[in-house]
Amino acid sequence: MPPSTPPTRFVYLGPEGTFTETALSRAITSTEGSHDPRPSVAAALSAVRSGDADAALVPFENSVEGSVPATMDGLADGEPLVITREVFLEVAFVLAVRPGTALADVRSLASHPHALAQTSRRLAELLPGAPPVPATSTAAAAAAVAAGEVDAAVCAPIAASRYGLEILADDVADHAGAVTRFVLVSRPGPLPPPTGNDKTSLVAVVGDRTGALLELLTEFSVRGISLTRIESRPTRQRLGVYSFSLDCEGHVAEARVGEALAALHRLCDDVRFLGSYPREDGRENRTVPAESADAAFADAEDWLARLRSGEL
Amino acid sequence: MPPSTPPTRFVYLGPEGTFTETALSRAITSTEGSHDPRPSVAAALSAVRSGDADAALVPFENSVEGSVPATMDGLADGEPLVITREVFLEVAFVLAVRPGTALADVRSLASHPHALAQTSRRLAELLPGAPPVPATSTAAAAAAVAAGEVDAAVCAPIAASRYGLEILADDVADHAGAVTRFVLVSRPGPLPPPTGNDKTSLVAVVGDRTGALLELLTEFSVRGISLTRIESRPTRQRLGVYSFSLDCEGHVAEARVGEALAALHRLCDDVRFLGSYPREDGRENRTVPAESADAAFADAEDWLARLRSGEL
Amino acid sequence: MPPSTPPTRFVYLGPEGTFTETALSRAITSTEGSHDPRPSVAAALSAVRSGDADAALVPFENSVEGSVPATMDGLADGEPLVITREVFLEVAFVLAVRPGTALADVRSLASHPHALAQTSRRLAELLPGAPPVPATSTAAAAAAVAAGEVDAAVCAPIAASRYGLEILADDVADHAGAVTRFVLVSRPGPLPPPTGNDKTSLVAVVGDRTGALLELLTEFSVRGISLTRIESRPTRQRLGVYSFSLDCEGHVAEARVGEALAALHRLCDDVRFLGSYPREDGRENRTVPAESADAAFADAEDWLARLRSGEL
Amino acid sequence: MPPSTPPTRFVYLGPEGTFTETALSRAITSTEGSHDPRPSVAAALSAVRSGDADAALVPFENSVEGSVPATMDGLADGEPLVITREVFLEVAFVLAVRPGTALADVRSLASHPHALAQTSRRLAELLPGAPPVPATSTAAAAAAVAAGEVDAAVCAPIAASRYGLEILADDVADHAGAVTRFVLVSRPGPLPPPTGNDKTSLVAVVGDRTGALLELLTEFSVRGISLTRIESRPTRQRLGVYSFSLDCEGHVAEARVGEALAALHRLCDDVRFLGSYPREDGRENRTVPAESADAAFADAEDWLARLRSGEL
Repeated sequence: MPPSTPPTRFVYLGPEGTFTETALSRAITSTEGSHDPRPSVAAALSAVRSGDADAALVPFENSVEGSVPATMDGLADGEPLVITREVFLEVAFVLAVRPGTALADVRSLASHPHALAQTSRRLAELLPGAPPVPATSTAAAAAAVAAGEVDAAVCAPIAASRYGLEILADDVADHAGAVTRFVLVSRPGPLPPPTGNDKTSLVAVVGDRTGALLELLTEFSVRGISLTRIESRPTRQRLGVYSFSLDCEGHVAEARVGEALAALHRLCDDVRFLGSYPREDGRENRTVPAESADAAFADAEDWLARLRSGEL
Repeated sequence: MPPSTPPTRFVYLGPEGTFTETALSRAITSTEGSHDPRPSVAAALSAVRSGDADAALVPFENSVEGSVPATMDGLADGEPLVITREVFLEVAFVLAVRPGTALADVRSLASHPHALAQTSRRLAELLPGAPPVPATSTAAAAAAVAAGEVDAAVCAPIAASRYGLEILADDVADHAGAVTRFVLVSRPGPLPPPTGNDKTSLVAVVGDRTGALLELLTEFSVRGISLTRIESRPTRQRLGVYSFSLDCEGHVAEARVGEALAALHRLCDDVRFLGSYPREDGRENRTVPAESADAAFADAEDWLARLRSGEL
Repeated sequence: MPPSTPPTRFVYLGPEGTFTETALSRAITSTEGSHDPRPSVAAALSAVRSGDADAALVPFENSVEGSVPATMDGLADGEPLVITREVFLEVAFVLAVRPGTALADVRSLASHPHALAQTSRRLAELLPGAPPVPATSTAAAAAAVAAGEVDAAVCAPIAASRYGLEILADDVADHAGAVTRFVLVSRPGPLPPPTGNDKTSLVAVVGDRTGALLELLTEFSVRGISLTRIESRPTRQRLGVYSFSLDCEGHVAEARVGEALAALHRLCDDVRFLGSYPREDGRENRTVPAESADAAFADAEDWLARLRSGEL
Repeated sequence: MPPSTPPTRFVYLGPEGTFTETALSRAITSTEGSHDPRPSVAAALSAVRSGDADAALVPFENSVEGSVPATMDGLADGEPLVITREVFLEVAFVLAVRPGTALADVRSLASHPHALAQTSRRLAELLPGAPPVPATSTAAAAAAVAAGEVDAAVCAPIAASRYGLEILADDVADHAGAVTRFVLVSRPGPLPPPTGNDKTSLVAVVGDRTGALLELLTEFSVRGISLTRIESRPTRQRLGVYSFSLDCEGHVAEARVGEALAALHRLCDDVRFLGSYPREDGRENRTVPAESADAAFADAEDWLARLRSGEL
């Protein structure tokens, strides 16, 4: 596929029937093309790198669980991939049973351990007598209910409907409002055009100096750019080298973001660009200060060119 | 127990037979006292807060999986707790079977999904025909082997020995050298004395201003203090408020660290001190610059007092 | 004289009849005590250092001529002296003649070369035919007029009245509104109490490192302190060592200023405190940010003490 | 004269026979062209602005007296002028008399008041009985000696030789080693090419914000550029607006300096470029850090272009 062709072959972190599949359906408007689950984040990213798929939808971070290491590391290492969209999805676990099953009939309960952890208090109230059984995914738990192996599953609504289950309780998470951020990643190609409300993601690797992080942040600050996420990542392989994964406001096509990234390229041991894409968390970027707007950069460039030519 | 009495009643993230139990035995020198597993990080921390236990040993971060959200959040919220020790433990998964079982005999395999994820490539080589079955813990998997329910478990060495299993393969992690950092936490009390090679942990909550993080880091930088970890934590509850979890070099009893923390207290919406304790990752803090040493602070205090009194 | 006794023996940069004498009369409310001119700034400062005088009134900077090197250097070197007051005086040169002399009668004109320089355009208009003759001071020029040696003098109003001269033109400066800042300096002693609108002056000597000045300014900035003047001073004696003379808002008795000065004491090769005194330039200090107010520092100190004692 | 033609019509701060004339002869290698004194710095700069002269040689700062306000202000205001060379000259005052005059014969002594001030202690020793008489310039004092009006002059060596005087004492300054920095200024035109050891001068006007100066310095610091001079200038005309006059290492043709100036152009109310020219104070610029070298900027630009085009 030439880079400028819209992607049509999608993969996602499977199995079918999880929140990631729901997120994919939100990320892409067209219903055309293929949507194939992959057994792991690494497998989904590999499919894009190898050209077997055009784009992969994977979880990036969760408001309860934090960042997803497999995605962080999968994007930081290997052939470059870039984020072209982000999707925020509320993680609303449901308690699903075979049609006709009442709460009092539930003797056994299955789900993925993460889902069990995030619903343990509510389940202890609803089903004090049903010991939780781990499953390899929330969808697998739903399938097990459909197959009659267990009585109930904690799963995504999509899994309940897919396996013909009935929903006994609608939102069984202990902390309501947990949100997962998913990203759609592709091989590098033409960037999504700036919308005025974009984010840029990157990974910067800096040597072991006091103040290396401060220097890095100063490059954003002097250009009026806000960060929306930052995380130091362990890089045990190389003692004394730190890796920072971060998101900032703005699009690399904008002057302030471009110059900041170029500065990081000069300062850091390594910088990996992970994409500029529309912000989808329902919030607006801060107003760009006048001195950091593209027009101010263009004026300054003109002025500098005149200085250098001796016209001023 | 009065605060200055050494802790004797320990709890840890259970069940028995996991790496956390091993870490606890490294953290404490005495063999006296009780060591009780708790079913979750939250339960272990609660036991300390309620006074049922003196200290809890819980995982903090892992070089592959990143930080442990339950610990991060469990320390950031609720009654104050402080870290008094850290322990780094290499996570060396073993493949354990009932004595006499050969590799060719293994038809089924169980472990906690995280352990299965971290060993998937090696297991596919060693046991291509044995589908992995999720268990609620690596120790539960070992128990299931002992009970004859499955043929093999991926677990900690301590679980293999506890359940009388034999080790078929010694280090089956896909990435060798994964390390987990555990912390021992207590209710606030007398701090471990400075050793010259300490860390201080804290959580800082800052409002939604451009450069809030930069300001925060500047307070460390101007006093010559290096950070060893930083992570922005999502705080969805309060839109536009960011929380940073970080570790810095030095002990709060030292002037530069104390003044930096006091500055954060002034600047931030909230600062939670999570303890000063000996650094145990096998690395040395950077040499404190002369201008940031306690003696320089003491000199400066004296000089300022003389200025203010008009003697200079 | 004990340090706490109000000064009564004043010296000033002479001769009599210059703007400095006028400034002195503004600086001190009492008419008691002695007011003695000294032939140079150095001599005036020496009189205070030796105890011959209690305080000296000297010019510090001028809005046209810039800082006064003799004062800058005289305060930066030698035994410590501190500023206890500042006085701003508009420098309104007058054209003075013997009573009865008309403009058309003026054939010759004298003044100090600085005064001649600051009035050259106006004088060329008023007295195109009268060549300017240099005098050792504006007051000496007035005396020469009184003695009949020249026809007109450019001098301070006080000199005209002292020598019985008549004023032909009232404000003959080319740039109207030139202001000179004078300072009253004493040996160190009890500081003037904070008024809520004070300035603090100091000289900081820093080694030859990139960013030394930036570090210095950061110490003010992180504590919300504005500078009102900064000047790098040549220190040819020690190659590669820079000296900065600066004024900041606030009083050393305030926590934020005290802590900033203590930080400079740690960082700089040398810091000389030149006093905290009421701001008299007719402007108000900026509002102190809440996080830099004394109350915030006191809260933070309390919090830190509790942390260190293990109570929190 | 077209801009690229070497200047041939020079003016300098007169009169003839002062250090400025000596400095001019050092600044230009050719002996061709005209060298005309002007009565003031303002007049010399005006001659260049009007096209009457190609370049003006004026004093900029002195290691004893500080900066020269007439030059500072003359360059900061009016039509743009740029510095193309700097000259450092030791100010070695001599005591000059008519041939045959012995020290014991000297009854009267003349010079410019600044020169008298800088030699007062030595003259009091050498000529305790000769009262100093002010002259409009050191050269005028020498002329007065030649004319028999006074017995001795404190002047530049060039004046002694020009007026046929004999030197009684060779270096009569109280502080040996005083150095004056002179600059040669022209109308804007092709810049002197980078030599690897250049300085850039500018004036930046910033609004009245806490930290405006810090922001300004940060733009240099993040690009590894050292300042060699900084001075805040009073701008009484516009209350709350500060002007900073500064010199930094490097040439505007270099990437790091160009980008820093462009950043200042965006941030400041006004920036006036005063030239990039070879450093002549006998010192070497610091080694440019690898990350701030032109090659690093070029690499970063290439990388950014590839990011933006989607090739990376």
